[in-house]
Amino acid sequence: MREVAVLGIGQTKIDEHWDKSLRELAGEAILAAMLDAGITRADALYIGNMMSGSANHQQHLGTYMADWVGIKGAEALHVEDACSSGAAAFRSAVMAVASGAVDVAIAAGVEKMTDSPGNEITAELATAADQDWEASQGLSFVALNALIMRRYMYEYKWERDHFAGFSINAHANGVHNPFARFQEAISEAQYRKAPMIAEPINLLDASPMGDGAAAAVLVPAEMLRRGNGRKIIRVVGSGAATDTIAIHHRRDPLWLSAAEKSVKQAYSQAKIGPEDIDLFEAHDAFTIMAALSLEACGFAERGQGPRLAMEGEIRPNGKIPIATRGGLKARGHPVGATGMYQIVEVVQQLRGEAGATQVDGARYGMAQNIGGSGSNIITHILMRE
Amino acid sequence: MREVAVLGIGQTKIDEHWDKSLRELAGEAILAAMLDAGITRADALYIGNMMSGSANHQQHLGTYMADWVGIKGAEALHVEDACSSGAAAFRSAVMAVASGAVDVAIAAGVEKMTDSPGNEITAELATAADQDWEASQGLSFVALNALIMRRYMYEYKWERDHFAGFSINAHANGVHNPFARFQEAISEAQYRKAPMIAEPINLLDASPMGDGAAAAVLVPAEMLRRGNGRKIIRVVGSGAATDTIAIHHRRDPLWLSAAEKSVKQAYSQAKIGPEDIDLFEAHDAFTIMAALSLEACGFAERGQGPRLAMEGEIRPNGKIPIATRGGLKARGHPVGATGMYQIVEVVQQLRGEAGATQVDGARYGMAQNIGGSGSNIITHILMRE
Repeated sequence: MREVAVLGIGQTKIDEHWDKSLRELAGEAILAAMLDAGITRADALYIGNMMSGSANHQQHLGTYMADWVGIKGAEALHVEDACSSGAAAFRSAVMAVASGAVDVAIAAGVEKMTDSPGNEITAELATAADQDWEASQGLSFVALNALIMRRYMYEYKWERDHFAGFSINAHANGVHNPFARFQEAISEAQYRKAPMIAEPINLLDASPMGDGAAAAVLVPAEMLRRGNGRKIIRVVGSGAATDTIAIHHRRDPLWLSAAEKSVKQAYSQAKIGPEDIDLFEAHDAFTIMAALSLEACGFAERGQGPRLAMEGEIRPNGKIPIATRGGLKARGHPVGATGMYQIVEVVQQLRGEAGATQVDGARYGMAQNIGGSGSNIITHILMRE
Repeated sequence: MREVAVLGIGQTKIDEHWDKSLRELAGEAILAAMLDAGITRADALYIGNMMSGSANHQQHLGTYMADWVGIKGAEALHVEDACSSGAAAFRSAVMAVASGAVDVAIAAGVEKMTDSPGNEITAELATAADQDWEASQGLSFVALNALIMRRYMYEYKWERDHFAGFSINAHANGVHNPFARFQEAISEAQYRKAPMIAEPINLLDASPMGDGAAAAVLVPAEMLRRGNGRKIIRVVGSGAATDTIAIHHRRDPLWLSAAEKSVKQAYSQAKIGPEDIDLFEAHDAFTIMAALSLEACGFAERGQGPRLAMEGEIRPNGKIPIATRGGLKARGHPVGATGMYQIVEVVQQLRGEAGATQVDGARYGMAQNIGGSGSNIITHILMRE
């Protein structure tokens, strides 16, 4: 397989974009990535999105966006893996370029959630869970995560406040990201006072929805070897795995086996281990997910994820920086786009373009995107040559 | 890239399956394909579906089905390219195996349409068109095709009755396919009397919706060279291309440029031309689409597609047999599954398992799946070694 490099990135601010249509929103990110890459055409477009068919009455997003950004004729595919749709699009693009079938691929993610009433979006998000055995019982995603967090606190003897560090770090980093939905810091006192959503998850444990799009341009690395003066950012690991769709079918609901499996694939391809990762864009849709993800990826012992947050090791200067541009918590979580935001942010770090939250000398960056309640997990490792 | 072979196939009858859930329906086809292939595990599952999020309140179908058929842990991806979702899933699987990233891949397609009211499904089908500029004007898919057919008849001087042969051939072949929704022949008199849906398209020009699922197991061809006594069916060509999503943006609405582009890729990879194709599973969602598809693939001159039907050349013993198992018209068109039904039927022909409608000595079979009104077209050529 050919080596694959990320040549360009683009993103929109995550917000309530009532003034932009779905195609304008996705187009803004894709065209920014094409401009950044210095290209005007592409062979293929892979776009991740979860709910445009119901929320925006528009399916067939691959064709829709290839047409809009002016790459008519190109292959185009819409992929959907619930909240991991963004990383799924990126992985499809990586595989297409690596295989030699495609030379210039665009990977994108978009989600436009705020045009619909909140209760409709909550119901649409629940279509990522098992409709027969979870959603139809009235379980929303926050409720599913609350069940996991409650059990986790019981098993490993944690208190609610021990999770505050995840949210505080994300918001502190989001302050410096102009694309983040929330650009304001929060204090531990604010975390403690935040209203409860589904006990033990409060408002500051949960990531906000939003409208957003992010994109990247992928090419064979050899195409860049001739040199354009830029650092080459390569995709050195890509892993994908699943778990049961319903939580109650898992042997251990407190262990993300799909994260473990996918990250092992990625480490093995990159020929590195967790100790080599300079920053990790984790899927902190809820603080409990950040903890579980850190454990499954080998950064913490089982049940000890919150310790990294308490000890400040997840900050940009810590042992394993996460949410360096705000994470899902502060940057925002437009579900089908999130995985692509993570990729864009890792590239910013590896290029040294992450500003106030730059991780010094970052060489290996990892992104992990989680679909459903840990049921589909895709992990990528990028490296600066 | 590695050579890819189809080792197993499976399908359900297309019908109103009110007694089967979405997972039971898709599971039946996938498990049949696994049984036919003699496998119990797979590395990845790619599933095409257009509207389960809205029609069945279930997204995240990759994970959902990997879990149900017992390949937990495997990579899983749901792909959506409107009515070409099935072929898109197959192409994703082909690329994954060809690249070496995956050894055993399952490609599947499923659509469960008859649980919802017909007007809801009509609106959901329209999400494959341009929502802002086509669907919101009240244009359904049959209306879009009626506009194309009307213009085609005017430009090339055809009468409605000249299209009858497409429908008659499809129904004659469907009689012998136990998986077809309609297993009864129709006469030219019946075609003439059929009620008009959207002039000039009548009921017998249009394919019926339905609930159905079809699947295939793909492996590297070298894995089969050791010999299990079976004929090796290889994927020798795979092409994908797009056109504008809205018809009014096309230079010539009567020419399927995405079909032409994708079939040229497939011919070139297979190192053959139209004269080598023994049978062609065309996307006869409407009779006009069968005509346009035959022209774009090089089987007829521009504007002359209907002539092949009038002269009987599309029958199993004709020059270019199409709809050999009933096509979309008689077998049925569960949109996201159709592309996989086409693949399954080509494999049946190449194996010599097509019964009364077997094309003698079939060696090269082609399948073409069309998404939207010709806006996303994927073509595969399979060959019996």
